[in-house]
Amino acid sequence: MSEKSKEYYLNRAVELSIKGSTEGKGYPFGAVVVRNGEIVGEGHNQVYDSQDPTAHAEVVAIRNACKNLNTFELPDCELYTSCEPCPMCLGAIYWARISRVYYANSRHDAAAIGFDDALIYEEIPLPISERKVEMIQMDKAEAMKAFELWEKASDRGAVL
Amino acid sequence: MSEKSKEYYLNRAVELSIKGSTEGKGYPFGAVVVRNGEIVGEGHNQVYDSQDPTAHAEVVAIRNACKNLNTFELPDCELYTSCEPCPMCLGAIYWARISRVYYANSRHDAAAIGFDDALIYEEIPLPISERKVEMIQMDKAEAMKAFELWEKASDRGAVL
Repeated sequence: MSEKSKEYYLNRAVELSIKGSTEGKGYPFGAVVVRNGEIVGEGHNQVYDSQDPTAHAEVVAIRNACKNLNTFELPDCELYTSCEPCPMCLGAIYWARISRVYYANSRHDAAAIGFDDALIYEEIPLPISERKVEMIQMDKAEAMKAFELWEKASDRGAVL
Repeated sequence: MSEKSKEYYLNRAVELSIKGSTEGKGYPFGAVVVRNGEIVGEGHNQVYDSQDPTAHAEVVAIRNACKNLNTFELPDCELYTSCEPCPMCLGAIYWARISRVYYANSRHDAAAIGFDDALIYEEIPLPISERKVEMIQMDKAEAMKAFELWEKASDRGAVL
């Protein structure tokens, strides 16, 4: 497939956002993953459809691309999304090693129609004790043993 | 099921972290979702197993709980996790409306054995132009139309 313009890929993401929010009764967000000019993954928000709060367009598109390419990292890929990724999706982008993101609407545009993206962006950098979600650290002796076990495992290289 | 101690639920999360990293050749993270004293969702890291960079323990546990309870929000639930959630998982916790999180190992413990949690926490609050992942805003006229369409949709109340 020959490389298209950036506008082409973004338009596809927007098209998916409309498809998701009209046909699927989902939320109006869409995304595509592109590698070497080819769309290798697509997604639209499926939170409502699939009853899965993590099924944002970017997450769905990343999962779709990883499935199609049989990998869990996409370092040579770019992501086009109809709206600036929320912190969850931004985290997913980092974990997937995606190198570049093109977006259209901003987190503030999303907030203006009732989505919490901007709020979550404000919450994440806060000290744990100041967040709206209460977070309590417990004794970590046993959990650290799990980390140590993993560090010592002879076959962990296979998964790194 | 009668309510157990907090240690019981955390131990189950740690048990899952060990199970995941030994049996499944995954990463050493586990989580459970608890409602009214009952474990309603469980997960261990399946990034490698399922070739899905979003399959962190907390995300898997939240998806599992939502499936079991047939909902996309878990406002009356608590999450127990063997390690402080990364920003992606923290985002998922906010979207799922989970009210409280108990954790053992910290983001710094995770960083010490090679995971990028701490790095991603540093990246998310940065101005977009200063992040390691390049983010480029494009023209948003068409994408805003998708937001407007959704705002005007007569049945959007069904999904809010």
